Amino acid sequence: MRILGVDPGLANLGLGAIEARGSEARLLSTELVRTRSRDDDGARLALLYDAVRAAIVVVDAEVLVVEGQFFHRQRDAAMKVGQALGVVRLAAHHAGVPVSSYGPLQVKQALVGTGRADKAQVAYMVRALLGLTSAPPSHHVSDALALALTHWSAHRVTARAASQRL
Amino acid sequence: MRILGVDPGLANLGLGAIEARGSEARLLSTELVRTRSRDDDGARLALLYDAVRAAIVVVDAEVLVVEGQFFHRQRDAAMKVGQALGVVRLAAHHAGVPVSSYGPLQVKQALVGTGRADKAQVAYMVRALLGLTSAPPSHHVSDALALALTHWSAHRVTARAASQRL
Repeated sequence: MRILGVDPGLANLGLGAIEARGSEARLLSTELVRTRSRDDDGARLALLYDAVRAAIVVVDAEVLVVEGQFFHRQRDAAMKVGQALGVVRLAAHHAGVPVSSYGPLQVKQALVGTGRADKAQVAYMVRALLGLTSAPPSHHVSDALALALTHWSAHRVTARAASQRL
Repeated sequence: MRILGVDPGLANLGLGAIEARGSEARLLSTELVRTRSRDDDGARLALLYDAVRAAIVVVDAEVLVVEGQFFHRQRDAAMKVGQALGVVRLAAHHAGVPVSSYGPLQVKQALVGTGRADKAQVAYMVRALLGLTSAPPSHHVSDALALALTHWSAHRVTARAASQRL
């Protein structure tokens, strides 16, 4: 299963793709897409849309994973992330790829085993599970990989439950 | 000048197009695009994107106008409006049409003459300025027309200032 995690933002969008087979997951690729604040919002959103469309093709993604809940103190920040998330979802729809979403609590529970985990623990487990020798180039990429790994984990639990019912 | 106003929302998106020549503005078309909550967000956003792309072609829009500031008490609502706004901006960019934005205060000042105007006064002026005999089918459409009229008003002020400098 090839899973593309996406951490959307208008200025920085993190992409992280993994390939999962049974109990093993390996890194396929990572990308940090940056847009310039001096460009108009339409051009920045178009760049994000194109990057996601391209990544879906390059990694032959079967599913795209985004964060399902956002905790932004500022409305303005929520609006910017929302616009980026909108074009990410549109890119997936245009490519015919389904989108799954998980909340921060689900990510922490899936990767660290407790919803009380902090960001550093999640980032550590991303490296450990994928056997990375260095940290991803940005926390946006690390967060994207964490989402992809959460989907893999949820899928494994579902698959195990199904096999136990047989 | 053909101006397409857009009031974005995931469930309801209002479109209102006007044609302005000097001191006169007339209604070109209105549309209320509704999406179903049982459909997935990607499909809903794709429907909004397609509707905006189509409207740009149908009215041969030279500029698209959206609200520049949003006052949503709930983050969840801001995220949904943000996603819709993202695909609206993308549609305009893909069609090569520039986007202008105005805040609620600018709309009230342009149409009613005071930032203390309420929504009913703005809606009344939309009908009066365009000579409509009945109210638009939805407040989303009325808001879209108000944005288009605000752009026309701002453009007239700029044009007058330029002619006075000659």
